[in-house]
Amino acid sequence: MAIRVLVNGAKGRMGAQTVLAVSRDAALELADQCDLGDDLAARIAASRARVVVDFTAPAAAYPNATAIIQAGAHPVIGTTGFTAEQIQALQALCRERRLGGVIAPNFALGAILMMRFAAEAARWLPHVEIIEIHHDGKAEAPSGTAIKTAEMIQAARSSAPRPQVESRELVPGARGTRAYPVPIHSVRLPGHVAHQEVILGGQGESLRIRHDTIGRECFMPGVLLAIKRVPDLHELVYGLEHLL
Amino acid sequence: MAIRVLVNGAKGRMGAQTVLAVSRDAALELADQCDLGDDLAARIAASRARVVVDFTAPAAAYPNATAIIQAGAHPVIGTTGFTAEQIQALQALCRERRLGGVIAPNFALGAILMMRFAAEAARWLPHVEIIEIHHDGKAEAPSGTAIKTAEMIQAARSSAPRPQVESRELVPGARGTRAYPVPIHSVRLPGHVAHQEVILGGQGESLRIRHDTIGRECFMPGVLLAIKRVPDLHELVYGLEHLL
Amino acid sequence: MAIRVLVNGAKGRMGAQTVLAVSRDAALELADQCDLGDDLAARIAASRARVVVDFTAPAAAYPNATAIIQAGAHPVIGTTGFTAEQIQALQALCRERRLGGVIAPNFALGAILMMRFAAEAARWLPHVEIIEIHHDGKAEAPSGTAIKTAEMIQAARSSAPRPQVESRELVPGARGTRAYPVPIHSVRLPGHVAHQEVILGGQGESLRIRHDTIGRECFMPGVLLAIKRVPDLHELVYGLEHLL
Amino acid sequence: MAIRVLVNGAKGRMGAQTVLAVSRDAALELADQCDLGDDLAARIAASRARVVVDFTAPAAAYPNATAIIQAGAHPVIGTTGFTAEQIQALQALCRERRLGGVIAPNFALGAILMMRFAAEAARWLPHVEIIEIHHDGKAEAPSGTAIKTAEMIQAARSSAPRPQVESRELVPGARGTRAYPVPIHSVRLPGHVAHQEVILGGQGESLRIRHDTIGRECFMPGVLLAIKRVPDLHELVYGLEHLL
Repeated sequence: MAIRVLVNGAKGRMGAQTVLAVSRDAALELADQCDLGDDLAARIAASRARVVVDFTAPAAAYPNATAIIQAGAHPVIGTTGFTAEQIQALQALCRERRLGGVIAPNFALGAILMMRFAAEAARWLPHVEIIEIHHDGKAEAPSGTAIKTAEMIQAARSSAPRPQVESRELVPGARGTRAYPVPIHSVRLPGHVAHQEVILGGQGESLRIRHDTIGRECFMPGVLLAIKRVPDLHELVYGLEHLL
Repeated sequence: MAIRVLVNGAKGRMGAQTVLAVSRDAALELADQCDLGDDLAARIAASRARVVVDFTAPAAAYPNATAIIQAGAHPVIGTTGFTAEQIQALQALCRERRLGGVIAPNFALGAILMMRFAAEAARWLPHVEIIEIHHDGKAEAPSGTAIKTAEMIQAARSSAPRPQVESRELVPGARGTRAYPVPIHSVRLPGHVAHQEVILGGQGESLRIRHDTIGRECFMPGVLLAIKRVPDLHELVYGLEHLL
Repeated sequence: MAIRVLVNGAKGRMGAQTVLAVSRDAALELADQCDLGDDLAARIAASRARVVVDFTAPAAAYPNATAIIQAGAHPVIGTTGFTAEQIQALQALCRERRLGGVIAPNFALGAILMMRFAAEAARWLPHVEIIEIHHDGKAEAPSGTAIKTAEMIQAARSSAPRPQVESRELVPGARGTRAYPVPIHSVRLPGHVAHQEVILGGQGESLRIRHDTIGRECFMPGVLLAIKRVPDLHELVYGLEHLL
Repeated sequence: MAIRVLVNGAKGRMGAQTVLAVSRDAALELADQCDLGDDLAARIAASRARVVVDFTAPAAAYPNATAIIQAGAHPVIGTTGFTAEQIQALQALCRERRLGGVIAPNFALGAILMMRFAAEAARWLPHVEIIEIHHDGKAEAPSGTAIKTAEMIQAARSSAPRPQVESRELVPGARGTRAYPVPIHSVRLPGHVAHQEVILGGQGESLRIRHDTIGRECFMPGVLLAIKRVPDLHELVYGLEHLL
């Protein structure tokens, strides 16, 4: 039987795509769609939705997530901006009800795999640097994905390896970020969307793991995966990697 | 206490490098080195070697492996050309004695990781092609690594996905190998050593896993890893991936 | 004074983009737009257009081009499918009137540069192979750009160099196309648009020239360049490369 | 008739390779080889060398070059460290005698082509960044080649283009060097030799020009080219690009 899905934030870019993707998937049924301003709890109850996808605004994400869980539906939340405390509170709420849920800052399967492989490879090839390339309309550098990848690499390696020679910068910035033990180099150029390459160097060999996106449609397979898997979970997981 | 190591095939390129690498590693002790023509069993006994590394010729590999196991030493064998039956026979021999051993067709850590990641990623992004580039002195195409990668990908995916449109070759060979469900494209050019890129395409995104080698020294970390781990194994494993 | 431009085929994807791009460019003025079925000659006369851009259907391209030239306007034609004879006839027509014109099968500046650089580099590094990657909805392989690149490379090199060893295909297709002296490898995967990499190998070094497109907007800078340059030409050129 | 060549600095790595390469080339004849401490002028006279290749130390380069020119031989000099004044003085000396000569800081054909193509492409695609990767034994960043490439790009573009949004660094160094209008990102990792990629971004497209070296043998084709062309020159050129 098809899983009944309510999409909250249906007029936003991600929400609209989710409505379309759910409608086209034979295993899913679009129970309802709503937006900021609608009474979410009432709509969940009326639509008998089993899973509620939320792509709204950071400020609304926490009350929405609480409302979804209290209504007994499974939350699949792509809105970003949760604090660690909020995530823990929502996890506690789900645990009480033995209710599965997913909060994911990134639904691109390829990006999740890139980060996982980078961390795993760094255990064996600990010399690593990250190059991320985004369009020239992106306001900040490095990207959140690059920072998260660096943290995952650092957690996987016992310690940052020493280079043969500590290189001296003739010009500040040449060697990328020095704040993390994994240098990050951020390129900003038109003609690009979102790209990241992790380069690992070993003795006489190197390994590169590269992820390229060409459009927002890259998030839908991950969103659909989360919707289909969340009914079988018994806790709230943070990060799509827990489903792969 | 340092592990006593005997290197067989010490005059060959790989053997000579192994002698050097073992000598330089404080956790290992070079117990002896020998070559085709020497009495391997006698040398193992005399040197009290705990691990015997064999980089000799395909024809010698099987009798050498047998001799090593019968002498009670742990074999670490990089010579290629074993039949499936020979490997099974050696595994049975090791099992009887609860003796750990390693036979590995490829000791490059990065290559092993590339193959593993390619197979794992193909479960989620099943549209895959392989590009391998080697120097123009390589006699055959595709490379053994490419064929093995294709087999691992095919085993990991439940089935080969259908393309949106079945592309028509205007010229034979354009679409690479058609024999496997994973197309392989082999490039042969000077200025290269051994390189492979696995490209996985999904909806709006792609993932690339690339391995580059610049010299034979890339095998040594894997050889040293096998030497250090093999005393703790209780069976003969085929493939360095079992140690990662 | 702004150049008056008429866009023919304004309802098609490329035509519609051209209308928009011309409207936004202060140096150009959109004099008129029309489509198949309209009386092109009359519209040119009425609009006093100095340049006419044509993005219609292959069957209409030749009569349209003739009409534009006879009306005394500068043609900028992106429609493909001209025969060599048709191009020569149009060039003769333009020569008579000392009228500049541009017919270009590809308006992407980066693609034009890639082909030029590949040909130039092949004079010095004659060992070359081409990898082209397109989405899995593309019906044929290799791409027209790859074939044209191979022809330009072959014309630039005096002769195809011999590899150190003639590699043997274990499986047909491994070595790509064998019909041209420049092997082409065509990859077809979702998550891609249109990409090409030319790899040149030399002694101890390699050079790669890679072009990636992420959308049709990549053609507009070339279209605008042609519109602005064509009034200063005194002949009909085939290929945007003549303007770079 | 074969060109008689004297190699100065024959015991150094580059000199030794040059001796070998000259010996193997049927169009050249190794007239003599010498090193620091030998009387270069006397050796040139005695050997009747027409071309003198110099790969010695920076301190010796200028007096050597002067001696070669005064002896009436054609200098081909790969030693680095000349000041602009020294180069001008040597050029004046050659001009007086209408004697051809070559001083080149880099003899890798692929590197020369990469820099030329990068500069030419930047005229059309002015948004550019440079990524250079070297082994982790390199003491300084950025590499000399990267700095030279940035200068050539800047000279070719009329001005540095403005990004859509000026990106803010969350961590210093993220955006590479900010001193030049062309950002440079220097990666230092084992498993690499010397690599550089120039990435140019346009509207909906990008162009990448990448050069990879795997060993010092990459310089020999450029050295041989210089030796064969220098007798036909009538001035001293700085940079191998003048011969391509």
